[in-house]
Amino acid sequence: MKTEVVIIGGGPSGLLLSQLLNDAGVSTVVLERTTREHVLSRIRAGVLEDGTMNLLRHAGVGARMDQQGLPHKGCYLTDNDLMVHIDFHKLIGKKVMVYGQTEVTRDLYDAQDRMGTTIIHEVEDVVIDGADSNAPTVSFTKDGQRQQISCTYVAGCDGFHGVSRATIPAAKRREFERVYPFGWLGILSRTKPVNDELIYASSAQGFALASMRSASLSRYYIQVSSTEKVEDWSDDRFWEALKQRLPRPVSEALVTGPSIEKSIAPLRSFVSEPLRWGNLFLVGDAAHIVPPTGAKGLNLAVSDVFYLHDALIAALKRGDHSGVDGYSAHALSRIWKAMRFSWQMTTMLHQFEGEDSFAPQMRRASLAHLAQSETARRDLAENYTGLPF
Amino acid sequence: MKTEVVIIGGGPSGLLLSQLLNDAGVSTVVLERTTREHVLSRIRAGVLEDGTMNLLRHAGVGARMDQQGLPHKGCYLTDNDLMVHIDFHKLIGKKVMVYGQTEVTRDLYDAQDRMGTTIIHEVEDVVIDGADSNAPTVSFTKDGQRQQISCTYVAGCDGFHGVSRATIPAAKRREFERVYPFGWLGILSRTKPVNDELIYASSAQGFALASMRSASLSRYYIQVSSTEKVEDWSDDRFWEALKQRLPRPVSEALVTGPSIEKSIAPLRSFVSEPLRWGNLFLVGDAAHIVPPTGAKGLNLAVSDVFYLHDALIAALKRGDHSGVDGYSAHALSRIWKAMRFSWQMTTMLHQFEGEDSFAPQMRRASLAHLAQSETARRDLAENYTGLPF
Repeated sequence: MKTEVVIIGGGPSGLLLSQLLNDAGVSTVVLERTTREHVLSRIRAGVLEDGTMNLLRHAGVGARMDQQGLPHKGCYLTDNDLMVHIDFHKLIGKKVMVYGQTEVTRDLYDAQDRMGTTIIHEVEDVVIDGADSNAPTVSFTKDGQRQQISCTYVAGCDGFHGVSRATIPAAKRREFERVYPFGWLGILSRTKPVNDELIYASSAQGFALASMRSASLSRYYIQVSSTEKVEDWSDDRFWEALKQRLPRPVSEALVTGPSIEKSIAPLRSFVSEPLRWGNLFLVGDAAHIVPPTGAKGLNLAVSDVFYLHDALIAALKRGDHSGVDGYSAHALSRIWKAMRFSWQMTTMLHQFEGEDSFAPQMRRASLAHLAQSETARRDLAENYTGLPF
Repeated sequence: MKTEVVIIGGGPSGLLLSQLLNDAGVSTVVLERTTREHVLSRIRAGVLEDGTMNLLRHAGVGARMDQQGLPHKGCYLTDNDLMVHIDFHKLIGKKVMVYGQTEVTRDLYDAQDRMGTTIIHEVEDVVIDGADSNAPTVSFTKDGQRQQISCTYVAGCDGFHGVSRATIPAAKRREFERVYPFGWLGILSRTKPVNDELIYASSAQGFALASMRSASLSRYYIQVSSTEKVEDWSDDRFWEALKQRLPRPVSEALVTGPSIEKSIAPLRSFVSEPLRWGNLFLVGDAAHIVPPTGAKGLNLAVSDVFYLHDALIAALKRGDHSGVDGYSAHALSRIWKAMRFSWQMTTMLHQFEGEDSFAPQMRRASLAHLAQSETARRDLAENYTGLPF
């Protein structure tokens, strides 16, 4: 088999890249380890930046998002009963869109179906050879048979545990990591969201987030110690803990109900540099992980796709290699800004085990600073709604 | 002896309070543990905020500052060769004044002399009695003789190690503290300052600050471990370490010379709440300490004096007690903002022993954020030049 770009990973970034490349007449093959159903069953982030929305529309997959998504003009940050409203729209004229990553992925699969692109599911033992040569190949096993694809470029969209990053020799890259000593216990419930905007809540009991997927589907999170087990958290225990962390007027309005999903996710900041090794390019979680505070994960993957699709089209269609040469530095510049923002939001809102008496005062002072300074709120709004690509 | 307000501590905050109160016809006695010469030999901060300048002028001690001080329209933050200029004047139309605390204190002593106020030096064993009653007394030993002053109010301007805070029962107050695992090794030298604005330098070798007292008197600092001893630092070793931490164009322009003062100061954030116990009020370092990064120490003491002089005059001259009742909450609101800013500047610019690979990346990303975002620079400028009283 032969194609121009092999895309490893059939999640939203791989599919979006495939969509944009095929749109420009670049041939691709997407390789995905699991089934389409499995990809679509993953529950992930759901806050889309301006630039993300625009790129989805540009790729022809924005219609359902614009119909069914919930545009949010702001969000709240709270510390016990101190509630700070960050009014994105008033501050900087921008909004974000609440639209689940699952829905984005579904729209992308539908668009790929319409376009008739090649997506091979349930591939095993993917191996990238010759990534640092002019003739890379990607081989894999499908239905017990070994197959190989020759290509010009390989895009690694296969997440943190994927083969792409691991293919780059350790001596050719640098890793930066922060592991936070807590996770997020999240539940999904068919209840009316407690507020029409997200609430990021700092409290004496730890962090909580009141979020949603739609007008009737709520997503709530609480910070828990890294050692907690999901089976120790009954719905009742979860709701009780959540209520304690939200400002009183919010917790009093909270509608509870049975959870339809419950899980604990660890929090991590991670970057592997550079994003390019020869003709292999890393995209999204394959190269970088942000903690979910600030909802940057999917958006960062999308901005990587933005830079990379442009670079690959220029190289393959016009023989202009400046984009592929600049991809890593270009994408990393934006990635580090989002890493900083996610780290700062995480640090500002979470309790750290063993912290001194000064630490919660600084969290409270940071919220008070936001409450009192329009400049500080604007800085947060600019970063939350997404820096320009 | 009898007076309206006993002021414990003859440093800048005690003297300024005395000046403002006497100006309004309130009688005071200032008690100082050391000699005037000793007070004037202390080398301290030298960056005055807008509000500090205005209050000094209002107190009639601004003339020499306006003549000899160096108005600064901005400062630099650097990380190796990344230099970020924070142009206060362009961003928010404000300046700060570089004028040594020693000079401020000298001007205040001169003004107190002209006014003929009472300052008693070399007092020992100061005891505050009945601070929570309507008839406090302050007793002390002077020249071997025990003396006592009856008063209405006591102002504790006697610094971190003074008797005032210690007089408030532990059960009546809460302490918040952060001890940073490093100190500042500072030298004063009769050399031309390397730059006409301050340079706060983050680097792979740790923090440094290029500062000055006048056009021919430089003040430089480098971050050192808490365990370092000043006698292990020759001038040569200091200059070498400093050069490594400054951006290349700056270190190449550095004029070195013999030090005329060299010392190590620890870094600490500390607040004791509340600032009032009965008729005793805490002012400045007696209640709160900031790390020097951001130069908030003297400025915070001055804003405490601003709130307190107003409150005491209202109470003593017009029988209006709302100011004294509100002093603690009012002053603390501004104090916590400056605590946050000083902590953030310290965290953003210093190396922490044992830190992970992610930490220096976040420092660099914070500088890059400032470089790229006018909003972030404005936030820094607003806080650096001083929030309104």
